[in-house]
Amino acid sequence: MSALELIQVAKSAAASVALASINTRNAVLRELASSLRLRSNEVLKANALDLQMGIANGMAQGLQDRLRLDEARIESLAKAVEEILEFPDPIGETVTSKTLPNGIQLSQVRVPFGLIGMIYEARPNVTIDIAALAIKSGNALVLRGGSAAEQTNEALIAIVGDALKSQSLDPNSVVTVDRFGRDGAVAIMHARGLVDVLIPRGSAGLIKTVVEESKVPVIETGDGVVHIFVDSTADLQKAVPVVINSKVQRPSVCNSLETLLVHKDVAEEFLPVLSAELNKSNVIVHCCERSLLLMPGAVAATEQDWSTEYLSLELSVRVVDSLDAALEHIAKYSTRHTESILTRDTASAARFQAEVDSAVVMVNTSTRFTDGGEFGFGAEVGVSTQKLHARGPMGLTVLTSTKWLVNGDGQVRS
Amino acid sequence: MSALELIQVAKSAAASVALASINTRNAVLRELASSLRLRSNEVLKANALDLQMGIANGMAQGLQDRLRLDEARIESLAKAVEEILEFPDPIGETVTSKTLPNGIQLSQVRVPFGLIGMIYEARPNVTIDIAALAIKSGNALVLRGGSAAEQTNEALIAIVGDALKSQSLDPNSVVTVDRFGRDGAVAIMHARGLVDVLIPRGSAGLIKTVVEESKVPVIETGDGVVHIFVDSTADLQKAVPVVINSKVQRPSVCNSLETLLVHKDVAEEFLPVLSAELNKSNVIVHCCERSLLLMPGAVAATEQDWSTEYLSLELSVRVVDSLDAALEHIAKYSTRHTESILTRDTASAARFQAEVDSAVVMVNTSTRFTDGGEFGFGAEVGVSTQKLHARGPMGLTVLTSTKWLVNGDGQVRS
Repeated sequence: MSALELIQVAKSAAASVALASINTRNAVLRELASSLRLRSNEVLKANALDLQMGIANGMAQGLQDRLRLDEARIESLAKAVEEILEFPDPIGETVTSKTLPNGIQLSQVRVPFGLIGMIYEARPNVTIDIAALAIKSGNALVLRGGSAAEQTNEALIAIVGDALKSQSLDPNSVVTVDRFGRDGAVAIMHARGLVDVLIPRGSAGLIKTVVEESKVPVIETGDGVVHIFVDSTADLQKAVPVVINSKVQRPSVCNSLETLLVHKDVAEEFLPVLSAELNKSNVIVHCCERSLLLMPGAVAATEQDWSTEYLSLELSVRVVDSLDAALEHIAKYSTRHTESILTRDTASAARFQAEVDSAVVMVNTSTRFTDGGEFGFGAEVGVSTQKLHARGPMGLTVLTSTKWLVNGDGQVRS
Repeated sequence: MSALELIQVAKSAAASVALASINTRNAVLRELASSLRLRSNEVLKANALDLQMGIANGMAQGLQDRLRLDEARIESLAKAVEEILEFPDPIGETVTSKTLPNGIQLSQVRVPFGLIGMIYEARPNVTIDIAALAIKSGNALVLRGGSAAEQTNEALIAIVGDALKSQSLDPNSVVTVDRFGRDGAVAIMHARGLVDVLIPRGSAGLIKTVVEESKVPVIETGDGVVHIFVDSTADLQKAVPVVINSKVQRPSVCNSLETLLVHKDVAEEFLPVLSAELNKSNVIVHCCERSLLLMPGAVAATEQDWSTEYLSLELSVRVVDSLDAALEHIAKYSTRHTESILTRDTASAARFQAEVDSAVVMVNTSTRFTDGGEFGFGAEVGVSTQKLHARGPMGLTVLTSTKWLVNGDGQVRS
C-alpha cells in the first residue's frame, strides 16, 4: 500500500468517527487511557528500539530526551487523554440560525473537519495528544511523526486503533505514514480533497517547508520572536520579575521573550537592575550601543540578533526613543506571535494593543501566558501565527468546521 | 517598481485603513459611490480600450459580455458600494472575554486581516465589490484581475485611490498588479508575510492553480457539481419546480444543479413529467441506463458526466436503489458545495444532512439558495468549498481575523 492509498483508507474511515456519538467517542478515550497504562511495556520496548537507533545515529542529547518515554511519562500521556475526556463535545453546536423571509430555516452547525493531517518532529507525546483531540472532535487523523520515533509511534497508534475497535469504530481513522519516510510527508501535503486541514508542529524550518510545499489547507503554527517594551511610565519594580519570567521560566518555547525594548527615559534606572537579575540566571545579553554600557557582561548585538528566536538563555536589548520607535521595531522584526507593553499610561497601552499586529498583545504581563492551558482551553493544538481560521493558542474548536443546513418546503428562487 | 515592491507598498499602507474609524471608512465608500457616477466617462473610455483589444484577440462573446461596462452597469456598481456602506462595522467586536483566576483580563476581538489578495478573471464588477468590502472591513487589498481588463481596472482603482485620499487614507492600500501580467499573480501567491489571505475567484482551473502554487494562506472558492436526490417519499408535485429552478434559473453559476438522483420507486412516475418540463427549457439530459427510457430525447451519460460541472443547460440523471446509493454517489462525485434531498421522511432528511459532507446541505429547496444575498449576508465574497476559516457563502466577516488582548498587573507564570 502506498502512502496515498493509506491516506485514502483514513479518509474512508473518517465517517465512522464523525458520526459516532459523544458517548462513543468518550468511551474510546477512556479505553485509550486505560490501555496506555496496561500496555506500557509494548510502548517502552518500541521506544527503546528508537532510542537505540537514535544513539547509533548520533542523535543529540536534547532530541533523545524528547523521544524517551518511561512509566511516568506514559502515565502523564494517559492523564492527558483523561483530561480531554472531560471537555464538552465540540461538535453539533448551532453557531447561528434564522428563518429567512421565504420561510426557509437556515442553521450553521459545528462539524468535524474530516481528515486532519499533522506533520511533527519526534515527540511521542504529540502523537497521543493529537489522536485524543482528533477523536474527541470526531475527526480522522493521518500522522507523520518523524522516522526517529517510528517504532514508538507505531506502538502508540496500535493502541489507539484497538481503542477505536473496542467501540466498533474503524481503527483506520488514525494512521501514520512514518514508514514511508519523506514520501509520507509529501503524500499528506499533496492530498487535495483528502486531507481537510494540515497542522505542522516543530521547528521553523519544518513549518516553512510544510507551508510552502502543501497543496492542502494549512494552519501555520509559528516561531516567536517575542518582544516586551518597557515604557517610560512602567512600574519598574514589577517590570523586573515580568521580564525575568518571560525570558527565564522556560526559554525553549515559542512564547518566551527574545527582544527587550526599553524607553530611553528609564533605561539608565532599569537596565542595571535587570542586568543583575539576568546574570543570576546566566542569560547572555545582546545589547544595542546605548544599552551596552548599562548592562555589565553584555555583548554587542548584530542586525541578525533582532530577528533571532534564541529559544535559549539569550536576550536582545535595545533602547528606543519612544513608543513610536518601539512599534516600528516590532513591526519590522516581530513574527506576530506575542508582544507585551509594560506601562502605567492607559493611552500608550491602548495604542500598543491596537497597532501591534500580533496574535496576542499584552499589557503588564509575562509573555509566557500565551498558552492554551493558561487561556483555559485545556489541551493545546499549538499556537497559530497566521490569521486564517485560528490565531493564537488553539484549543479543540480549531479542529472543527461548520456546515449550513437549509430546510424548506419546496421553495424556489425568483 | 516590481510587483513584490508594490505589494510591500500596499502592506505598509494597510495600517492606514486598519486604524481608520468606521465613520472614515464609510466616508470613503460614500465618496467612491459618488465618484463612480461622476467619473463614469473615464471608466467607459478605459473599458472600450480593453474591449477593442479583446475583440482584436478573438475574445469569446461571453467574456466580452462580462467585461463590458455601460452607464447602467456603473450605476449598479455604485449602488453595490452604497449597500456595503449600510452594513454594520465588522471590526472591533469582542468575540469572547473572561477574567482568568490570576486576575488577567483576556479578550478576543475582531480585527482586519491586514492585506488581502484576490486573483480573479476579467470581471470589473468584482474589482469594485471587493475594494468596497476590503475598505469596509479595514483591509488593504492587492488585486490581479487579468490583463484583459487591465485598463478598466486601472481606471476603477484610480477612483478608489482618490476616495481613500479624500479621507486622508493612504491610496496605496488598494493596488493592482495587472500590469506585471502573470508575474504579478506569482508575486501575490508567493508573498509570505505580506499577503495575509488570498482569495481566488473564477474557473476551476484558476482556483486549482492558485491553491497549488500559493505559499500564502488561501480560501478556496469552488466549483459546484451540485446534486438533488428525489427520495421515494418526495412530494413529486413540488419536486418538478424545485429541480427546474435549480437547473434552469441561472445555469452558469456554481449553485445550479448538475446531477439529479432519483429513487427507483418514483422514477417511472417522476422522470417523464420532469422530462417534459426540461425539454421546454431546452435542457440537454444525460441519462443512466435506467432513466434513458423514461426521458424522451435524452442522451446516454458517460462516466465523465457524473463529475462534470456543465454550467449550462445540461443535466445528468441517475436512478438509484436507495438513500444509501444516493449518499454513495454524492460522496464519490460531489465537489462538496451544495446538495439537496427532496423527501417527506424526516429520518431520511436527517440522515442526508448528517452524512453529506458539503458546505450546504438542503431539504426540500432549490440549490439556488446557496448565496450570500439569500442567506442575508448582503454582499458575497464567494462560496468556500473548503473547511478552513469559512465554509459556504462568505460575507464581510470572512475578511476579518481576531487578536487576543491580555491585560494584567505584573502577573508572571509559575
